[in-house]
Amino acid sequence: MKKNLIFAQSGGPTSVINASCYGIISEAKKYGIKIFAAKFGVEGILKDNLINMTDIDENDLNLLKFSPSAAFGSCRHKLENEDFQKISETFDKYQIGYFLCIGGNDSMDTAHRLSEHMKKTGRDISIIGIPKTIDNDLTNTHFCPGYGSAAKFIATNVREMALDAEVYDKNIVTIVEVMGRDSGFLAAAGALAKDEIVDSPHLIYLPEVPFEKDSFLSDVERVFKNMGKVFIVTSEGLKDKSGNYAHLREAKADAFGNIQMGGIGRYLEHLVNQNISKRVKVIELSIIQRCAAHTVSQVDNDTAVMVGKTGVDKIMNGVSDIMISIRKTDKGFEPGAVPLSQVANHTKPFPLEWIDNKNRWVTKEAIDYMLPLIQGQVKVPYVNGLPKYIRFI
Amino acid sequence: MKKNLIFAQSGGPTSVINASCYGIISEAKKYGIKIFAAKFGVEGILKDNLINMTDIDENDLNLLKFSPSAAFGSCRHKLENEDFQKISETFDKYQIGYFLCIGGNDSMDTAHRLSEHMKKTGRDISIIGIPKTIDNDLTNTHFCPGYGSAAKFIATNVREMALDAEVYDKNIVTIVEVMGRDSGFLAAAGALAKDEIVDSPHLIYLPEVPFEKDSFLSDVERVFKNMGKVFIVTSEGLKDKSGNYAHLREAKADAFGNIQMGGIGRYLEHLVNQNISKRVKVIELSIIQRCAAHTVSQVDNDTAVMVGKTGVDKIMNGVSDIMISIRKTDKGFEPGAVPLSQVANHTKPFPLEWIDNKNRWVTKEAIDYMLPLIQGQVKVPYVNGLPKYIRFI
Repeated sequence: MKKNLIFAQSGGPTSVINASCYGIISEAKKYGIKIFAAKFGVEGILKDNLINMTDIDENDLNLLKFSPSAAFGSCRHKLENEDFQKISETFDKYQIGYFLCIGGNDSMDTAHRLSEHMKKTGRDISIIGIPKTIDNDLTNTHFCPGYGSAAKFIATNVREMALDAEVYDKNIVTIVEVMGRDSGFLAAAGALAKDEIVDSPHLIYLPEVPFEKDSFLSDVERVFKNMGKVFIVTSEGLKDKSGNYAHLREAKADAFGNIQMGGIGRYLEHLVNQNISKRVKVIELSIIQRCAAHTVSQVDNDTAVMVGKTGVDKIMNGVSDIMISIRKTDKGFEPGAVPLSQVANHTKPFPLEWIDNKNRWVTKEAIDYMLPLIQGQVKVPYVNGLPKYIRFI
Repeated sequence: MKKNLIFAQSGGPTSVINASCYGIISEAKKYGIKIFAAKFGVEGILKDNLINMTDIDENDLNLLKFSPSAAFGSCRHKLENEDFQKISETFDKYQIGYFLCIGGNDSMDTAHRLSEHMKKTGRDISIIGIPKTIDNDLTNTHFCPGYGSAAKFIATNVREMALDAEVYDKNIVTIVEVMGRDSGFLAAAGALAKDEIVDSPHLIYLPEVPFEKDSFLSDVERVFKNMGKVFIVTSEGLKDKSGNYAHLREAKADAFGNIQMGGIGRYLEHLVNQNISKRVKVIELSIIQRCAAHTVSQVDNDTAVMVGKTGVDKIMNGVSDIMISIRKTDKGFEPGAVPLSQVANHTKPFPLEWIDNKNRWVTKEAIDYMLPLIQGQVKVPYVNGLPKYIRFI
């Protein structure tokens, strides 16, 4: 008897995680098996909360390809050993033989430990990881689906905000805070905004470089004097030399006082206000940068579909305990495979050699790496002037 | 001898103010006159800081049609009577006979007073206003170019953020703060996000309705109990019964204490934190909502071009001291004319009869009004994965 397939979404959503689900479902249909989705990630498996997607309507499947967020829900549940038994029971009940787990490095760890458990308990369950994260911090893959679209959104909006910020002939400091607690890939994407018309951003701050207040202020002062305005892109996760978040340390020091710290953007504003200029604008891109599906990168969407499809083909052909990776070739981006153990719990920082510390900028290598990931505009289905999306929770 | 034409952009920028300049330049070219743009609004006229746009390259002109911000710069300069003489001198120097002023109600007042001055001093200068504001608060026009695109951006992003916010199966309150100090049109656009898939937003707060803390909290509590989550869209300018900004009043009352108030979003977060839930996410759409040219409404862009072109045709045919208005007809949106004195310094609030106070929502009439303004997606020129824009400052 044929065994069935289940997939689960995990961790923070992206604009293209559902494109991977589209890839999984459309490919798995070819094998004539039942296809289940776990609701709210592995919690759905633990709680026997599944959706049978085998007979999904073609139109809904197409909408899924372009919908943001996690259409089946997600969770941040870290699997304990006692969870494994419950998962096995659900798998037995639905005759699951194939499990695809879409997520970042935490999820790859979950997938790997579960795979080990299945082997140990003699169950014939294949498990494959599908990469997903806007942070782009998974190792052993050229990039992670989700990053390309977030990078495109950040670059596009930084370019547009830079034009807006310079509309008055007056000094202003603009600070854009983007995601990335430990990884600078997202902030680095701000560099793509610069062209022969837009000379912003002027300064980019990444979590890979320890934040120093004095050097920050001298950077800002230098640009302010030269250009009459400053446009800064910063990762949310700047840390000092000791590894503490820069903005939290200051907030603590000021615990009796008047300032309720927000994120790093507000902290940098505070520093500029105190030392250089009162005219500061802070924009936090917040969750918009990971869910703006109306402006997804075609390359990113295509690659997200590809890793989903490849995951199905590999798992149906007996491969297990790997994550589908992405390789850059002359022909474009192609799928590869890497043992789950090699990606589980590892993170890839933004390469230090791509950081130009003197100019607070990134190197040409970094630009050349990022540009191919943001190419092409997806044709999202529009109904009555707005993008039409779907979800199943 | 033929007289020349000048135009100026004024006040806050929009995603389509440059489309009106495209309309002005492309139409004025047909009359074989010189075309000047004032740099940084009327300040450019005061300081003799003009750009000759007569021979603009066709490709640049096309880019202008899709570029956000004010490509020639803007200002918030309120004209004093002593400025009129300086403006007249610049007009004399460049043999200006036609002045098109693109702006909101302040700018229409400027244009009107200048027109009166020209008449009084016996100068043959025609002056026409071109409407522009994301707030949509100009009177005597069906809508204002800029609003359609901002409304489309807000509706699109609220829909995307609503999907993102509900990805975990846990209670969360999401607050989206949009622009509109005195006018609720932008916040009302959040209602368009709701469809058969997305049931957000649940509550919409407009500046036209006095804000009451207790009733806000009981609204939020009711939705929280019924739905397990709450999605709120609020105008930045909520005021109490006395007309004071709701968030500033609280900040003042707390002047000795620990809380540094941000905008209204942070204030509502504070209220929810204190009374209902600690899990609150605040997203301020900030300047993105007025400069996201990559997602402009086709109808809005077309109308912005139309009012620019019509302004030129009318002014070249002897019409003066009017603003080009927009009329809704069976065929779509068509240009009209309204005396500047009738729009100068007047504002149009969001109609009170379109507000459903009981449900903190807007009526079907409001939805029917907004929907035609967000139709169609502009084909912005892309180069290397990013929209290509232009400016002349």
